[in-house]
Amino acid sequence: MSSTHILSAYDDELKYLSRRISEMGGLAEQMCADAVRALVNSDAALAQKVISDDVILDHAERDIGDKAIVTIARRQPVAGDLRDIVGSLRIASDLERVGDLGKNTAKRVIAVQGTGVPRKLARGIEHLSDLALTQLKEVLDVYSSRSAEKAEAIRIRDEEIDAMYTSLFRELLTYMMEDPRNITTCTHLLFCAKNIERIGDHATNIAETIYYMTTGAQPEGERPKDDTSNTLGAITE
Amino acid sequence: MSSTHILSAYDDELKYLSRRISEMGGLAEQMCADAVRALVNSDAALAQKVISDDVILDHAERDIGDKAIVTIARRQPVAGDLRDIVGSLRIASDLERVGDLGKNTAKRVIAVQGTGVPRKLARGIEHLSDLALTQLKEVLDVYSSRSAEKAEAIRIRDEEIDAMYTSLFRELLTYMMEDPRNITTCTHLLFCAKNIERIGDHATNIAETIYYMTTGAQPEGERPKDDTSNTLGAITE
Repeated sequence: MSSTHILSAYDDELKYLSRRISEMGGLAEQMCADAVRALVNSDAALAQKVISDDVILDHAERDIGDKAIVTIARRQPVAGDLRDIVGSLRIASDLERVGDLGKNTAKRVIAVQGTGVPRKLARGIEHLSDLALTQLKEVLDVYSSRSAEKAEAIRIRDEEIDAMYTSLFRELLTYMMEDPRNITTCTHLLFCAKNIERIGDHATNIAETIYYMTTGAQPEGERPKDDTSNTLGAITE
Repeated sequence: MSSTHILSAYDDELKYLSRRISEMGGLAEQMCADAVRALVNSDAALAQKVISDDVILDHAERDIGDKAIVTIARRQPVAGDLRDIVGSLRIASDLERVGDLGKNTAKRVIAVQGTGVPRKLARGIEHLSDLALTQLKEVLDVYSSRSAEKAEAIRIRDEEIDAMYTSLFRELLTYMMEDPRNITTCTHLLFCAKNIERIGDHATNIAETIYYMTTGAQPEGERPKDDTSNTLGAITE
């Protein structure tokens, strides 16, 4: 086997990992968007689809893990390539968690079915979700381009999601206080909102991993956090 | 440099990773236990300590990540050793998340300070936490012994925590419905309970990673889940 042949097979292995990550990203994003759409439209069948899709994401994470180990053992990469492979393990793990959050939201859609989710609250969750999924989509694009600069820009943008989450959190508490019959439904919606806020955190994790993959350094400084909301009830991580 | 010397240095590097993981485990466990103790005793100073301890865990995870990459690049391990090193990255990530859950609980202790958490509810959370932290402690012991058999036994034991979480969840909803003035405090307690239930999930993840490290295979089958509770409000992952 010529060395060109070996190098090209190696390159194929790296590309395989990248492609699988992008596929996982696409599916995780779709699951979360579908879960929220199911909430807005009270669509139990769509929620059920999200729940069953989760197994595809779990398999993809395991496949990436197995392939990454085989590639490291066979090619013994160093520096950038090694960081790239290890980074793909981390990103796969974040995307698997995003899928779990979508699935958890879908389960709650089924739980609140028939209780009548107030339109305004469902819209609020949809709005939060649009923001979080845009951030996820952007970070997946940055993953394709491997731009450390863009990764850093996304990392410091999580505040907007936290602020919107806090506002939604307060609104949900108000509904609960106004009428105790809203408590069960609003509790589910609180956890849905929290799930979506967590998607933003995973997008930030992925941005940090991309920064590390491309530069070999960890991003500087703490993540900015909107922590003024703590005493008002909406505590982000 | 003799080859014995090289092997011994390599061995030291592997031991370093194991020791750092054990340290992270000890600290994560302590943080979660302290956060719950702070809740039970309304101890804001202890909660504050938990919040500041989190940075130690974040640094430890980064250190393990950096050292793992250097070890892989330098020693080019295969098979068991490679899985061991990659496994330590995964476990470090789970432990870092456990610390985040402790920190988030501690923030909520500060938020509910002065609102008077009903003793019975605080005890319920303490009980759930005892169970989850015992599971975490056991899985960390299994990590030291690298026993696939014991790892599998822990993996299928998460149901007990889920069942207790569900019961606590219902109790919290009842308090909220009885008196709307309890809503804000009970919402924080709901999220505290959820945080603790998540510790059990991370212990299960770690057990799966240990199984993979020692056998090279993924554990068979789905995790058992107490899913009868879904329609009653307490949805685990």
